[in-house]
Formats: sequence, C-alpha cells, structure tokens
Amino acid sequence: MATPIEFIFDFSSPYSYLASEQIEPLAARHGRSVDYQPMLLGAAFKATGQPVLVDVPLKGEYSKRDFARSARYAGVPFTMPQPFPIATVGAARAFLWLKDSDPARSLAFLHAAFRTYFAQGRNLSENPVLADVLRQVSVDPEQAFAAIAQPAIKERLKAQVDALLARGVFGAPYIVVDGEPFWGNDRLPQIERWLEKGPF
Amino acid sequence: MATPIEFIFDFSSPYSYLASEQIEPLAARHGRSVDYQPMLLGAAFKATGQPVLVDVPLKGEYSKRDFARSARYAGVPFTMPQPFPIATVGAARAFLWLKDSDPARSLAFLHAAFRTYFAQGRNLSENPVLADVLRQVSVDPEQAFAAIAQPAIKERLKAQVDALLARGVFGAPYIVVDGEPFWGNDRLPQIERWLEKGPF
Repeated sequence: MATPIEFIFDFSSPYSYLASEQIEPLAARHGRSVDYQPMLLGAAFKATGQPVLVDVPLKGEYSKRDFARSARYAGVPFTMPQPFPIATVGAARAFLWLKDSDPARSLAFLHAAFRTYFAQGRNLSENPVLADVLRQVSVDPEQAFAAIAQPAIKERLKAQVDALLARGVFGAPYIVVDGEPFWGNDRLPQIERWLEKGPF
Repeated sequence: MATPIEFIFDFSSPYSYLASEQIEPLAARHGRSVDYQPMLLGAAFKATGQPVLVDVPLKGEYSKRDFARSARYAGVPFTMPQPFPIATVGAARAFLWLKDSDPARSLAFLHAAFRTYFAQGRNLSENPVLADVLRQVSVDPEQAFAAIAQPAIKERLKAQVDALLARGVFGAPYIVVDGEPFWGNDRLPQIERWLEKGPF
C-alpha cells in the first residue's frame, strides 16, 4: 500500500478549504488515503515574517476575488466569511482529539468545520458554532470541550505545530506526497500528475 | 475581434517566464492576441511591502523547488539563474522601445530575453548579455542602447509602471482578460476556462 498523502491545513485558510473538497477523490483515484494534519498559520506567519494575505495592499483585494473565483472554478460553495481570519486553535484541538479517538468521525468533523466557516460564513472560533459542528457529526460538545481543555491535547497540537515548522511548513494547504511538498490548492494538478506518472 | 489578453510581466520573474512560454498558444486557441506589458516588480513590492520571494524563510527554499518543478510540469527548459533576482529596467526599456518601433520583433526579443536568463542562466542585467539578446533578434545593440538612454523611453517605462500600480498590479505575471485579473502562472487553467466558456 502506498503511503498516505499528508494534507496540512488551517481551518481559517480558504485555499485549504478548497483543496479539502478535492483531495480525497484525487487520492482515491490513485489508491491513496489522506492523512490530515492541522497547522496554525499564525505560528507559520510569525516564523517566516509573512503578513496575513488579505492585509497586503492590492494583493489582499485581489485575493478575496481569487478565493471566490477559484471556488467557482472548482465547483465548491464559498462565502467570504466575516470575521476573517479567525483563531482556529479550538477547532484544531477538537480535530486532533477526534483523530486520535475516532478517525472516521474526525474526517466528517473536518469537512463540516470547513463548510460551516467557508460555505455558511459562520464564525468557527465561537464556541456555540464549534458546538454545532460537533453535534452535526454526532459528537457531544460538552464531552469534546472537556477533552480539548486537557493539557495533553494542548501539548499535542503545540508539538505538532512545532514539528511542522521544523519541516519547513510556511503556509497551507501544504500537501506532501512521497516526501515531495506541494503548497497551495493550485498545485493539485501537479499532484495528480505525480500520482499518475511518478516523480517529475 | 475580441480584445487582446494583457500579459504584465517582469523579466526577473520565473513564473512570468513560464507563463510567457504558454500564453500565446493559449490565446490563439481562442482567437485572442497577447499584449505584453513590462512591469518592475521592485516598485510593486515596495508599494505593497512585500519581500523578495526567495528571501522569505522556508517559503524561499520551497519556491526554488517549485520554480523548477513547475517548469518540468509545463515542459519548459529552466535553470535557476545566479544572481537572482536582477534589475530588469534595461531589458524592459529595450522591450518598450521595440514594441513601439517594431512590434513583431519585440515579441522575439521578449522570448529571447526570458530564455537567456531562465533557460541559459545568463545575467540579463549585464549589458553584454542584453546586447547578445538584441543581436539574436537582429537588432543593432548600439542603436538600441542609444535609444533606451533617451529620457522619452525612461519616462515611458516609469509612466507605465505607475499606471500598472494604480490598476492594482502587485505581482507578475498579472494577466488581464476582459477586465478580469489573474495572478500567476498557475491561473492559466482558469484563463483557459474563461476564454472557452466565458465569465464564471
């Protein structure tokens, strides 16, 4: 069995959302699975001195246009959420907790969380919204909030973010196939070529 | 006749080079021509506070890998030149002078200049290299250097850069189709869709 595709994401990254809607069918076409790994882009931007994309003059305005057009191009529902970006540490911890305890449900949670923020435009950083996402995938929010308040899961996310930074992850989605890194939703065609015909 | 595709570029931009090797056949498939417009990315980066891509920690290293892989993906010869980036004001002035005086030859010059820097890795900011590019397209370097030393052509480039900044151009390639801006070599598939089926 070929190694899984590593899909490194942040719940506040529009291009991560767009790629998350396409990566599983793409992987499946080539007999691969997807290993989702949450990142906190704030930490990556701090480490690399990058500003938040939408705050860059001129480029920020273009980016919002590009998010929406790239979503239409991919056939994925999209709403530019307000506020943007948001803190995603709670959602990331919940994802990691589910990934450890109930992997199948963690996938459903991931897609529900992304869609809640980027298709419905609801603020995923607010506990009532996160609770609603948990209920959508039949997880008891009270149990989840208790779990992610534990030091163990906080440490788990922190260690993961540090490990990803050490591996050179500076943005998201950051997709690793057979050790080869691809950054951005717009690298999906190169990933497809790689899976189809091997390294190029 | 449909309006030309505006292709805004910098001779020191690897993704501009990659797109320049693909845009004319793409445009021709849909009955369009290409209007090349030189930009100076240094001015755009200053206006938007962006650093030079290869200088960004982590992202810079990835980018060099991505330049080469994206070139292989596109089937375009590529060498990472040293030094990089370079000043392209001389080449941009020569291009504009030819565009005004001999449009067909300006296209040949553009491709020869890009290939000299990014396929052969020769430093286009040095006058002997620029002279060689001019000779490749049967332009007398002495005549060209005299022409681009005139205030008129310097003013022409400055006015063009200011106009492009005023239009929101923050990077390159920046490709405008029917008023819709597309940034980056990786937006060529969206441009193809736009030309094929209209706005989306």
